[in-house]
Amino acid sequence: MNPELSIVKIGGNVIENPGELQKFLELFSALQTAKVLVHGGGKKATEVGQKLGVTTKMVNGRRITDPDSLDVALMVYAGLVNKKIVGSLQAMNCNALGLSGADANLIQAYKRPVNNIDFGLVGDIEAVNGAALNNFLKMGTVPVFCALTHDQKGQMLNTNADTIASELAIALSATFKVTLYYCFEKQGVLYDKDDEESVISNIDWQLYQELVSENVISDGMLPKMENSFRALKSKVDRVCIGNIAMLHSVPGLYTTLAL
Amino acid sequence: MNPELSIVKIGGNVIENPGELQKFLELFSALQTAKVLVHGGGKKATEVGQKLGVTTKMVNGRRITDPDSLDVALMVYAGLVNKKIVGSLQAMNCNALGLSGADANLIQAYKRPVNNIDFGLVGDIEAVNGAALNNFLKMGTVPVFCALTHDQKGQMLNTNADTIASELAIALSATFKVTLYYCFEKQGVLYDKDDEESVISNIDWQLYQELVSENVISDGMLPKMENSFRALKSKVDRVCIGNIAMLHSVPGLYTTLAL
Repeated sequence: MNPELSIVKIGGNVIENPGELQKFLELFSALQTAKVLVHGGGKKATEVGQKLGVTTKMVNGRRITDPDSLDVALMVYAGLVNKKIVGSLQAMNCNALGLSGADANLIQAYKRPVNNIDFGLVGDIEAVNGAALNNFLKMGTVPVFCALTHDQKGQMLNTNADTIASELAIALSATFKVTLYYCFEKQGVLYDKDDEESVISNIDWQLYQELVSENVISDGMLPKMENSFRALKSKVDRVCIGNIAMLHSVPGLYTTLAL
Repeated sequence: MNPELSIVKIGGNVIENPGELQKFLELFSALQTAKVLVHGGGKKATEVGQKLGVTTKMVNGRRITDPDSLDVALMVYAGLVNKKIVGSLQAMNCNALGLSGADANLIQAYKRPVNNIDFGLVGDIEAVNGAALNNFLKMGTVPVFCALTHDQKGQMLNTNADTIASELAIALSATFKVTLYYCFEKQGVLYDKDDEESVISNIDWQLYQELVSENVISDGMLPKMENSFRALKSKVDRVCIGNIAMLHSVPGLYTTLAL
């Protein structure tokens, strides 16, 4: 049987709060399986961008990555946030290795094709270099990915962290029994978004369709769920959605997705 | 016989000039040996720091790294500069892997002890993890180091790039025949600093002592030379000092150091 591996994605709500981040890193480093961390960047990039005079460009309510915004992403995600996480994990005897998709050609992407909106320097993933990733894991390192990829032609690209997590999970499912954890601010997917106690413990493909038609799942949750079911259909064992406590909690207190 | 390995250190004069950097990366990627790149950060950090309202602190003419300056170093060196270099090398089919000393615990350091001056978050190197570095090289990757290390207690530390290059060279000398290249703006160590033609082809330990006593070698060149001779005394095969053209040039046109 394949050994177990956990892929954990955290977003701005964890990264922006030093106490929460510290607590998360302790939970993460205590995971006994092989593991991979994927992090977004949070509001720090907006804050640094503003001070540098880089304004966030929006078209039809969608964020555009121009060259200056990409530089800010490189600075904040690949530099400040990634290396602080790596340094903190090393202090917990977790052998972290900070990575972008360009490093060791781990994640190749292409600039998102223009279709009504030109998102700028945003990458859609083309291929994950599973062999290199397996080598890093065999060495006993813990890959820590920021949400940046490259096009193999010298251009770095901003890429959705949820998607990076699910694509890494799919690539590693050939050699590992993979659990993909999406950490966010809520305890799980809720029946009633105003009631934290209304966590839906298990969602399968059929229930997912129903929840979408009933509008229980909408907006920002939709792409996360799409990524999740794509992963499950590509041999990822389990996808869990909840707050950081789920890493050492029992199923039922967070949402587990299965086909 | 051990296989050959080249360690190349570049500084601000290459990094700050996009044309020069591109030319350098082409020369570097064409090296047929195993290889490692170490880069400083140049004036970009000062420029970004100023825009972010972080002023460079100086005591007795020496630069101090306070926590805000360290954040700028993380952003500019580990983020912006490192990932742009990695992305560019990948486009040249050079399998670059961007690293700081915290990644895979590659370079452990301790905060420089206070002796008249407290340099702040500056690290002196304690140990290089040669085993991990060898694994990365065995995988066929090309390590690209920024000048940041860590103390294994969660603190990143600013570290001199020349010293990182020489310590990596020493650590790798157990398994490789190492040539250490220090690239700077001049063709080599000059007899007459105003005459670019006056390159000293070969400097051994005795000549070095004479050149220091005659004040031909002084100021900024002294620590570089000290690093070089320390490396040679620790089994590094050769140290070369010159501009980027030396990577594919013949000995005599740049300075070669030997014991």
